Parts: sequence; structure tokens; C-alpha cells
Amino acid sequence: MKKLINSPETVVDEMLDGMVAAHPEYVRRLEGTQVLVRADAPVDGAVAVVSGGGSGHEPSHAGYLGEGMLAGAAAGEVFTSPTADEFEAMIREVDGGEGVLCVVKNYEGDVMNFDTAAEMAEMEGVEVRQVVVDDDVAVEDSLYTSGRRGVAGTVLVHKCAGAKAAAGGSLDEVAEVAEKVVDNVGTMGTALTSCVTPEKGEPTFDLGDDEIELGIGIHGEPGVERTEHTSADEITEHLTERVLEDLDLDDGQEVVTIVNGMGGTPLMELYVVNRRLQELMDDHGLETWDAWVGDYMTSLDMMGCSVTVCAVDDELKELLAAPADTPALTR
Amino acid sequence: MKKLINSPETVVDEMLDGMVAAHPEYVRRLEGTQVLVRADAPVDGAVAVVSGGGSGHEPSHAGYLGEGMLAGAAAGEVFTSPTADEFEAMIREVDGGEGVLCVVKNYEGDVMNFDTAAEMAEMEGVEVRQVVVDDDVAVEDSLYTSGRRGVAGTVLVHKCAGAKAAAGGSLDEVAEVAEKVVDNVGTMGTALTSCVTPEKGEPTFDLGDDEIELGIGIHGEPGVERTEHTSADEITEHLTERVLEDLDLDDGQEVVTIVNGMGGTPLMELYVVNRRLQELMDDHGLETWDAWVGDYMTSLDMMGCSVTVCAVDDELKELLAAPADTPALTR
Repeated sequence: MKKLINSPETVVDEMLDGMVAAHPEYVRRLEGTQVLVRADAPVDGAVAVVSGGGSGHEPSHAGYLGEGMLAGAAAGEVFTSPTADEFEAMIREVDGGEGVLCVVKNYEGDVMNFDTAAEMAEMEGVEVRQVVVDDDVAVEDSLYTSGRRGVAGTVLVHKCAGAKAAAGGSLDEVAEVAEKVVDNVGTMGTALTSCVTPEKGEPTFDLGDDEIELGIGIHGEPGVERTEHTSADEITEHLTERVLEDLDLDDGQEVVTIVNGMGGTPLMELYVVNRRLQELMDDHGLETWDAWVGDYMTSLDMMGCSVTVCAVDDELKELLAAPADTPALTR
Repeated sequence: MKKLINSPETVVDEMLDGMVAAHPEYVRRLEGTQVLVRADAPVDGAVAVVSGGGSGHEPSHAGYLGEGMLAGAAAGEVFTSPTADEFEAMIREVDGGEGVLCVVKNYEGDVMNFDTAAEMAEMEGVEVRQVVVDDDVAVEDSLYTSGRRGVAGTVLVHKCAGAKAAAGGSLDEVAEVAEKVVDNVGTMGTALTSCVTPEKGEPTFDLGDDEIELGIGIHGEPGVERTEHTSADEITEHLTERVLEDLDLDDGQEVVTIVNGMGGTPLMELYVVNRRLQELMDDHGLETWDAWVGDYMTSLDMMGCSVTVCAVDDELKELLAAPADTPALTR
């Protein structure tokens, strides 16, 4: 499988340099690390929201660095958690005196290393909170996770927590809105093809020409069910129904939806999925307040998508609509 | 090859409905057509900038509908020009009394149908101008084109012309800045894989596991040269040198660069390309004023990218930095 890279060993490092070269007004690299922070970090007097994890999910997370979203993003090697040292260096760099909220996708490596980093940073006098995102409704436990996985819904946590921090929220308040998003969001994904990691150079699971995987994660792990490839409408129905079963929303509830591309899926197809998704929202008596369509949390070059639904109230709507100025998301 | 669609016959129609369902605040569909226009069109007292062409290049062009960019975008079937009637319906719908600038990518079908549409609209009293974009430096004549093809540089034309129109420019002035971009922009692309059209369901050209195509267009036509797959750096060098030879810029010239994904390439790889691109700008004594990295003008699910360089002066910089509020680009 061909890739536009120089070598598996240098791809993350070179990607980070390429991001800084593209967006020097937004991001800078913390010397000697794979951590990117907001160009103007630390922002004195504001809570800093940070995230991070293995690479391969671009634009997550460094694409969301900037005003109104993230203050720091630590990049591990592909699908591999950054070290606790890198997380700690990030936390200390971005602290503006009001504390740091870590938004952690629920993978064992990330959770463990963020935990250690938080302890280390606290010993240095930085107040740290963590919120673990586990929006994937497909599985309870999986290859890399106890409990549910954190996937595309994480970006909504970045947006809301970042907006609350920008509005002067305290660390408690920022953590509280992050938890509110986590409590109200569900996601499920499908793969038409496996991703190909730079290291391995071939698909991480085999999938026939007429098969798809339902309930996939974002690390090349197979899904929970393999089924015959079918129409976009049927796939959308399956994903959406599973998410809605999990959320169990009241009639008339306002929601934000995401059709998230996995990296190799054309935008054309994501809009076809969104068409059916919005019909289903109508059928269920739900009111779509905003619909996101695009690549937010990818899995390298995987073809496929995930559907996210998040119930929103006035507070979350205000935070979602608040200004954000980042390479990958602007409001 | 698997796709997230319902059928090749309905994919464009359903994509358009999915776009309207996602972005009703930005776009509406002109009944009985495949034309999307700005939700608030016509904007009285402003020149309207429109574009369009075959589908498969998303977010081009409807993703750029909104304040500061396009007023209308006509979508043909995949890789097929919209009809003159559709173009004319669009032109008449968006005219706010100050005339309409058509930004036409240089393909025979688009040029012919836009010509006919302009004549028809003019007979109805609408003042129409056309600017033909031909930024692809790879080929003089090709499968669908006399002269050079219009590719990713087109988006810079949308941005500058749209900003000039929003600033109250006359039709002459808007056309003039569009021509200025066309005169100063060059692009060249590479494919690691062929795209797969919904209709055909298989690659439009065959490419070995260790081969790439250089000088590809955006319609599944093969490139001008087939070569061995090599490193991202070498590919970037080849594309960039060809573009710079064509532009022949003075030392110290300010430029905007684009690393444009063809639809199936992860953002990670585009940033790796951008890293080398910016080193090359330095080597050539060029000053990158802004660097765009992402999917702007795609070719369905093709893996690959194009490199665009556009020389900018104070006028173009002001227009590029001016506000834009569209689904795919916000400034």
C-alpha cells in the first residue's frame, strides 16, 4: 500500500513540523517533544483545555489548537499513546494559573499516561482535572479499552470545554460542561476498508469486497459485526438506531449530529449519509440544531464513517456556537 | 470497490440534499435543478460570483457558498458538466442587479455550457462575465481540455473574487481580481491510486503497487508521466519544481501555497508534503504568506495530492484574508 510519507519512523515528526509550517499563527512545537501548543500559550487567567493520544486521527487533536478550543495536543506515534512525560510537559507549558483540563479518549494507554502526568504536574503546583470520553456505543470492552471507546464525540467535548474556558469558566465549570457532553453523546462507526498503518504497510484486518465492518474503532481494530455491504441508507439506519437506542432521547430533543469521515471517504459520500441521518432525526422526533459533516476524528486512510448524536441544551448550544479559531474548525 | 452510496444514478442528487440538510443556513437548492445557491441569494447591490462543473470534487464547489465567496454552484453528474440550462437558471437566480461573474474551470464541456448560459442570461438582461481558470502546469492539452486544465487554484479565484464582490466591487473589478489570480497561480498533482467513479465501480486507470502518476487531472484521467513510487519529499520536489518553473517568480516574492488532498489521502500525509514544500519555498527565496493544507478540490476517492503556488500582492492578500463564511472555508 502506497503512502505519501518518507518513512514510518519519521512520519509523525514530519507531520508535526508540517503543521507548524502551515499554521505558525496557531501552533508551536514544544522543543524536544511531539507536543503542539497554542502559539500564544499559556493564556494567563484562563483554564487550559488539552488533549492528545496516538497519531493517525488528524485533524485530531492538534487541528483544534487555538482560541476557543484546545491549548495543547500531545501526539504519540501512530495509534500509540504519548508518554506521561510528554503529557506532563504539555500540561505545565499551557497552564495559565487557572488549571488544566485533560480531555482523554478512553484507551488504556492514554488514561494511564494522563493519570501519571496529572499527578506529576500537581506535584509541581498545577491544578489538573481529567474527563474521559467514551462515546462509542458499539462495544463495552475492546482491544485497547476497558469500557467504551472515545471516538468522534471527543471533538464536541473539545469545543464546549474550550469555549467555557475562553469565557472565563473556572476549572470546575469547564470540567462540568465537558462531563455534560460526555453524558449526552453517542457514536457508532463503520468501515468499508481497513486502515493501513505506515509501519505495517498493509490492512490491519481483512475485509472482502462485499463486506463491511460495523462498530469499528479508530485504531484499526475490527468491528463488532461483519456484514454484507449494503446501501448508504441501510448502513446509516443501522448506525443511527444503535446510537439512539443508547441515548434514549425524549421527543423534541435538540441534537447536534456528526457524520465523521474516517480519512479515506470522499465528502460526497458523507453528505449522502447525512441526508438519511437527518431523515431519521425527523422520524424520531428529534430536532437537529446543527449538523457537522467532514473528517474530524479519522483512522488514517480507512474508508468509512461514524455517526454521532449529541443532545444539547441552551448551555451546550451557546458553547458550540461560541467563537473558535483553529486550523480545523472555525466558528 | 465499495462506496457509501445508494446507487450511481442517485448519488449526486442525494449528496445535494445531504448538503442542504447539513447547511440550511448557508445553502438552498434551486427547485428542479442540481444548482445550490447561497441561502440569502440574490444579494441586492452586489456582484454574484458563481462556479460549477461535474461532481466528484467536493467540497468544490458548493462547499464555498456563502458570504465572501460563491453565490451559486451548479453540480453536474460525476465528472460531467452541468447543462447550459442549469448554469443559466443559476445565473438568473443569484443576480442582484450588479451582474454575475462565472468562474469556469477549463474543461470543454464547462466552457461551452457556461458560454451558452451566459448568452442566454444576457438576453434576459443579466450582465455576465466569465473567467476561465487553467492553473494545471502539467499538460497543454488533455482528454477533456484544450489548453491547461483548471484544478485546485480555482478555490483561490473563488476566494478573491468573492471577497471583492462582498466589498462592493463592480463586475469589472471582480473579474479583474479573478484574472489576476489566474495569471499568478500554478498547480501540479500526483496520484498514488486512481479514483473509482460510482458508475464504473472500478479504477479508471491501472496503477501498479509501486507506481505513481505525475501530472494527473481531477477527472480520473491518467497523468503525463508514470514513475516508480518514491518518498513524499521527492514527490513534493518534483511537483513544486514544475510549478515554480512555470511561474518564474522573483526572489522574495510572497506566495500562498496549497497542499490539496485528492479525497482519499489522510491529512497526516498532506502535512508531511507541506513540510517539504515550505522548505522548498525557503530554498527558492519565496516567502509563504499563507499555507493551506486540506481537501479543497478532490477527485472522488483518489489517493494523492496537488501542490499549488500563487504569487500574491497586497490586493490579493487583503482579499484572501477578508471574511468568508461558508461550509468549507471560514476566515
